[in-house]
Amino acid sequence: MTAIDLNADLGESYGAWTLGDDDAMLAVVSSANVACGFHAGDPATLLRTCHSAVTGSVRIGAQVGYHDLAGFGRRFVDIEPAELTADVIYQMGALHALAQVAGSAITYVKPHGALYNAIVHHREQARAVVRAVTAYDATLPVLGLPGSIFLEEAERAGLRTVTEAFADRAYTPQGTLVPRSEPGAVLSDPEAVAQRVLTMITDGTVRAVDGTTVDVSAESICLHGDSPGAVAMATAVSELLRANDIDITAFV
Amino acid sequence: MTAIDLNADLGESYGAWTLGDDDAMLAVVSSANVACGFHAGDPATLLRTCHSAVTGSVRIGAQVGYHDLAGFGRRFVDIEPAELTADVIYQMGALHALAQVAGSAITYVKPHGALYNAIVHHREQARAVVRAVTAYDATLPVLGLPGSIFLEEAERAGLRTVTEAFADRAYTPQGTLVPRSEPGAVLSDPEAVAQRVLTMITDGTVRAVDGTTVDVSAESICLHGDSPGAVAMATAVSELLRANDIDITAFV
Amino acid sequence: MTAIDLNADLGESYGAWTLGDDDAMLAVVSSANVACGFHAGDPATLLRTCHSAVTGSVRIGAQVGYHDLAGFGRRFVDIEPAELTADVIYQMGALHALAQVAGSAITYVKPHGALYNAIVHHREQARAVVRAVTAYDATLPVLGLPGSIFLEEAERAGLRTVTEAFADRAYTPQGTLVPRSEPGAVLSDPEAVAQRVLTMITDGTVRAVDGTTVDVSAESICLHGDSPGAVAMATAVSELLRANDIDITAFV
Amino acid sequence: MTAIDLNADLGESYGAWTLGDDDAMLAVVSSANVACGFHAGDPATLLRTCHSAVTGSVRIGAQVGYHDLAGFGRRFVDIEPAELTADVIYQMGALHALAQVAGSAITYVKPHGALYNAIVHHREQARAVVRAVTAYDATLPVLGLPGSIFLEEAERAGLRTVTEAFADRAYTPQGTLVPRSEPGAVLSDPEAVAQRVLTMITDGTVRAVDGTTVDVSAESICLHGDSPGAVAMATAVSELLRANDIDITAFV
Repeated sequence: MTAIDLNADLGESYGAWTLGDDDAMLAVVSSANVACGFHAGDPATLLRTCHSAVTGSVRIGAQVGYHDLAGFGRRFVDIEPAELTADVIYQMGALHALAQVAGSAITYVKPHGALYNAIVHHREQARAVVRAVTAYDATLPVLGLPGSIFLEEAERAGLRTVTEAFADRAYTPQGTLVPRSEPGAVLSDPEAVAQRVLTMITDGTVRAVDGTTVDVSAESICLHGDSPGAVAMATAVSELLRANDIDITAFV
Repeated sequence: MTAIDLNADLGESYGAWTLGDDDAMLAVVSSANVACGFHAGDPATLLRTCHSAVTGSVRIGAQVGYHDLAGFGRRFVDIEPAELTADVIYQMGALHALAQVAGSAITYVKPHGALYNAIVHHREQARAVVRAVTAYDATLPVLGLPGSIFLEEAERAGLRTVTEAFADRAYTPQGTLVPRSEPGAVLSDPEAVAQRVLTMITDGTVRAVDGTTVDVSAESICLHGDSPGAVAMATAVSELLRANDIDITAFV
Repeated sequence: MTAIDLNADLGESYGAWTLGDDDAMLAVVSSANVACGFHAGDPATLLRTCHSAVTGSVRIGAQVGYHDLAGFGRRFVDIEPAELTADVIYQMGALHALAQVAGSAITYVKPHGALYNAIVHHREQARAVVRAVTAYDATLPVLGLPGSIFLEEAERAGLRTVTEAFADRAYTPQGTLVPRSEPGAVLSDPEAVAQRVLTMITDGTVRAVDGTTVDVSAESICLHGDSPGAVAMATAVSELLRANDIDITAFV
Repeated sequence: MTAIDLNADLGESYGAWTLGDDDAMLAVVSSANVACGFHAGDPATLLRTCHSAVTGSVRIGAQVGYHDLAGFGRRFVDIEPAELTADVIYQMGALHALAQVAGSAITYVKPHGALYNAIVHHREQARAVVRAVTAYDATLPVLGLPGSIFLEEAERAGLRTVTEAFADRAYTPQGTLVPRSEPGAVLSDPEAVAQRVLTMITDGTVRAVDGTTVDVSAESICLHGDSPGAVAMATAVSELLRANDIDITAFV
């Protein structure tokens, strides 16, 4: 039986502000990228999300980001590598404590937003994140974009790397993501996205914006949890995968 | 040989702002109450302080506080107990990760500033802090004021409690601290303070503001690390204790 | 023709987090209590809300609060009066600049959340807010609870005071609000609330929780903009008032 | 009689953290770049600094920066232009209110730290700052680096632009600043710096790192207020200028 990991960003509410429907997403995904308080997620929210993840038997990953609530971690910040390393260690430890109290632990690390995008190519920041994970717990896998400097540096450092593909993002013929600023970069039809995910898993390919077929072999597929229609899309994906006997289960 | 623990608040710089002289204080104290980022202490500062503490063989405690940089944690915040519990778990975990990377661990918890003062009498918040420690790591001792609701609740929960006295604070005849708002509440003469600490340790007493002698038996003595003259005072205390064959060593 | 001012809290989104439906509420109210960035409202959100208010011919008031994003300004903070005064001046000026760029100005001040509640009885903080308004622009009216220390101090300082009643809050026989922690404190049926508002305006009374009738004469009525159903309730109020020839117009 | 404006960054303390000696610097400079709370400066600090500036007859400018306390505004942040514009308006308004309460007003704008450096070449952010000033108060002069995109865009928008030179920074033969990361980038000898400033004013030149003479005509000279020795250096500059009959006075 084929199996795939589905991951989504969760725990991104903050105080009085709610974002996404964590409980609904936790019914679908196998890996929860839980925010760590720097771009989103106050501690009470994070603890609640960790409890829900444990209840739903979903593994918890640390979704570390830039220290930037106003920008939701979506603004690149030119932070010194040593400071970024400390920021990432701080976030992993904070979330781990909450996960532990909820009866679990953090079991992987996935950078968020602008940090995720930066370390596709920004070697100094990529190394800073890798150093943080290596120093804190070198057994933690890291989740990232195939071909990124981040995964390259993580591998070099001996970390377990996990590649991911994006369910609802358009791909270029080169296999990279179409930038969000371009029209059609984000797909919104649940059935089309579900079909796309199925093809990613069974064929290891995706149809690029020019109609060509490109390789996207990945160990995990990222669903977005915060867009309108996120739950509907996640449910469509989940149902189609089950109908095709594909097990949604956390990567090992 | 008599022994006593000396503790001080450290790691309270933030980004470009420096507060106190951590390295000088670490040469004197046996327990470092390291800030956790909520009232002070950016992660890079905290990691540096943890490294220095490890180098100086000083134990690290989590100095947890209200989430209030502008007020330095010195303003009472009427936070919901469940939110305070999550905040405290978050802070302990964050600092523990940094301490671990520095080769150590957090080995006790001491609330900071307005939180420290509030839980002398505020039962709900005291319980919230106790719940956080109990849930995260019930083997962690907590440091607090003798007679406080906090220590009472901590004992009831089965936590190891450690009482402390204050080297440079005036005491009332009832053995409580003279409020900072009153004249003479804080002592500043290094030699007088050192002598006072010596008497606390050898006799278990202190001379109150009215000249009477009151009991202050405590397992740890708090030195302030952020006042002007803090280092001179700490050094005077340290020298007088050594001259009297009193070992400065962490509580067990 | 009778006239009444309706006010609501707006501009309370923050970065990626949306709260309430500003545009829908602006179609109903005559006074917009716009957040100032301390409890909610990033500058881009606030500027957008100011532009919408100007477009809708709704007056802008400064909804000043404690510096507390995580608590949404709903936690009492025991801040020094001088610091609170400076915080309030800062917030008024920041919002005024944005309002000015949008073609308007701040024309009144309404404290938010825990600050609003605190200065019903906390004289030092009430005075601190009054001092801020007086020093910044003594022609600005302040909006508050009838009988509050805040309005008492504001009057003494020569400020124009505006009293308000709450559309969806239960009242005690003494004319005070039933605390939110008690059952039935907040009403949710749009038609019942609309009828209640109509009675407030035409009779100057409201039916208390024990069935007695109490006086609630007020120059403005507060609608909540952030609850689920807020827009439906505001619309019901607006329609009933118009059907009864009551003009919704800003207080003078 | 020759005259020159001296400016320095002030109001950069935050809560319990003190940075620089505002009162000593205010005794020397003619223009105070007062922080606005985003990279430094809590409102109570800012109000105090404004009062001191008024007492010392020093003009107040808004030192606007990125929203980044942990990084002290020294990290480039890739913020959307529209959000930067709103952030700058917010900061100008906030400081203006405090300056007004202190009996003055903001009379110019000088970007801080990484924002200052970014808009030397980053056209979108430069325009965003210019748009903020233009929309808020088009009569406010802006202070910047000669040859910067910022001043170019400001001029195009019709703003009064004021160029500045740096008292204690090494210059390249091309007239640009030697990056701080290179050795010798910052000068520390008060007498040498004072002499350098005198030459800048009287000859309009400075000796570059390679010994050549380069043009640095500027309407204002920036002294650093936060370095150790800042006050000694400022005093040396001030004394040498007075001894040479050069008036230290705000630009018009």
